[in-house]
Amino acid sequence: MTPTIGVFDSGFGGLTVLRALIERIPQAQYAFLGDTARLPYGSKSRRTIARYAAQSARFLVEQQGAEFLVVACNTASALALDAIQAAVSVPVLGVIEPGATAARAASRTGDVLVIATDATVQSHAYSAACRAHGLRALEKACPLLVPLVEEGWVDHSVTAQVIEIYLNELRQEAAAQGMNPDTLLLGCTHYPLLRNLFEQAVRPGAKVIDSAEAAAQAAAQIFNGWLSPPGSSLPEAPPNAQLHFFATDSVEKFERLGSRFLHRPVGHVQLVDLGG
Amino acid sequence: MTPTIGVFDSGFGGLTVLRALIERIPQAQYAFLGDTARLPYGSKSRRTIARYAAQSARFLVEQQGAEFLVVACNTASALALDAIQAAVSVPVLGVIEPGATAARAASRTGDVLVIATDATVQSHAYSAACRAHGLRALEKACPLLVPLVEEGWVDHSVTAQVIEIYLNELRQEAAAQGMNPDTLLLGCTHYPLLRNLFEQAVRPGAKVIDSAEAAAQAAAQIFNGWLSPPGSSLPEAPPNAQLHFFATDSVEKFERLGSRFLHRPVGHVQLVDLGG
Repeated sequence: MTPTIGVFDSGFGGLTVLRALIERIPQAQYAFLGDTARLPYGSKSRRTIARYAAQSARFLVEQQGAEFLVVACNTASALALDAIQAAVSVPVLGVIEPGATAARAASRTGDVLVIATDATVQSHAYSAACRAHGLRALEKACPLLVPLVEEGWVDHSVTAQVIEIYLNELRQEAAAQGMNPDTLLLGCTHYPLLRNLFEQAVRPGAKVIDSAEAAAQAAAQIFNGWLSPPGSSLPEAPPNAQLHFFATDSVEKFERLGSRFLHRPVGHVQLVDLGG
Repeated sequence: MTPTIGVFDSGFGGLTVLRALIERIPQAQYAFLGDTARLPYGSKSRRTIARYAAQSARFLVEQQGAEFLVVACNTASALALDAIQAAVSVPVLGVIEPGATAARAASRTGDVLVIATDATVQSHAYSAACRAHGLRALEKACPLLVPLVEEGWVDHSVTAQVIEIYLNELRQEAAAQGMNPDTLLLGCTHYPLLRNLFEQAVRPGAKVIDSAEAAAQAAAQIFNGWLSPPGSSLPEAPPNAQLHFFATDSVEKFERLGSRFLHRPVGHVQLVDLGG
């Protein structure tokens, strides 16, 4: 029996996490839910995000039979991981802790810059996770980057300028606090599409860490152990991952833009009503 | 008895309409609702927008006693005016028709450029309203402008570049269709904050029309007639407008950013739950 991994996000940015998961766990089935009727979570309150995220989680577990959940939304991971874990009875993995773990492995100075949405930054979830790993983190909300990605300006001079402005502000603040950051942690699932621009914008030698990649890596460690317990034999031929997509609104936009994030056609997206 | 005018928007951009209304109808009471838990409407489907807008309208009429409604949201005006009018029994005014009327008065060539959100443009509501006034309209979605306004970059070189890029694309398309536009219609309540940049970006002699202003002017004609029927005497001293603010989420952000749109402190904003 092929296990089903449920992946959910406020929109389709989390498809960057799904893509990284498929690369690492190709033998699974995936049910991806984008809560597009209520996006963006990034500008909403903790109470509202927790309610929306719990509804999404229950849909994936109770109606789609997901046996694991990956919360591919930084804002929901930051503000509602507890609420999601309370809402369902399967293991739940967020993206914050894997991101902080990867930053710990990358940083020599122990000082990390984190960029994310407003709500993720205001939660200080990355700061707390980094501190638990002995890192100092300085966070900044970069609300223009998601719209720039969704406009398709992923290799555009305007986007490069916006990134330069945001990073300069962040570096000035870091210097004022006596920090010496050598790692930039991307705390939003849209940002991997701007990876080239970030690589060009950071100081020489600085590392860019992507929490989508980091979360997929952590999931692979957990799920591959579960799928192939020690002593068991691997499947004879790794089957192609089976993908099922759901969205609460704007299915057409999901189908049209999703392939940019997934690096393959999304195909059919089923509209669902979570009652919101 | 002072009448209550209900004004609603998906967020707080509609405060530009409220500001224009207060200038013209200072003797009214106002109840403003920002459906901030579910913004932005601009990227959502007609079905979803209609459901949200009808809930907001009923709140203002049934719970706040509004005797008129102004839909200070271009997307809701474009996609859900019928649904709102069906949901409540008071007169409802949207922003599309007044914007088209003002464009008709401004344009000599009869060719108009309209910029708005995705959903407003896809509805082609401005095109239809302009055509009914004998105008040809070319519409373009400019999804980066709302986030730029909310980031406070209202007088920023990046915003000027983005406007230049959008308007150049629009003018090239207009030229390809043999149009000779002399009027730019701002079809989103956030755009009045960028008015200076638009005035600098349009061709010399071209006019910039703001549908927030146009809607307030239309409302004043309707409501002032109702408030001061012919033969009646004006109130002795025009009282200050009384303002009540409601939001479905992010009250703090509303209070913090709202004053930029209203040009005065917003004060207390009451959180309401519309069940979404």
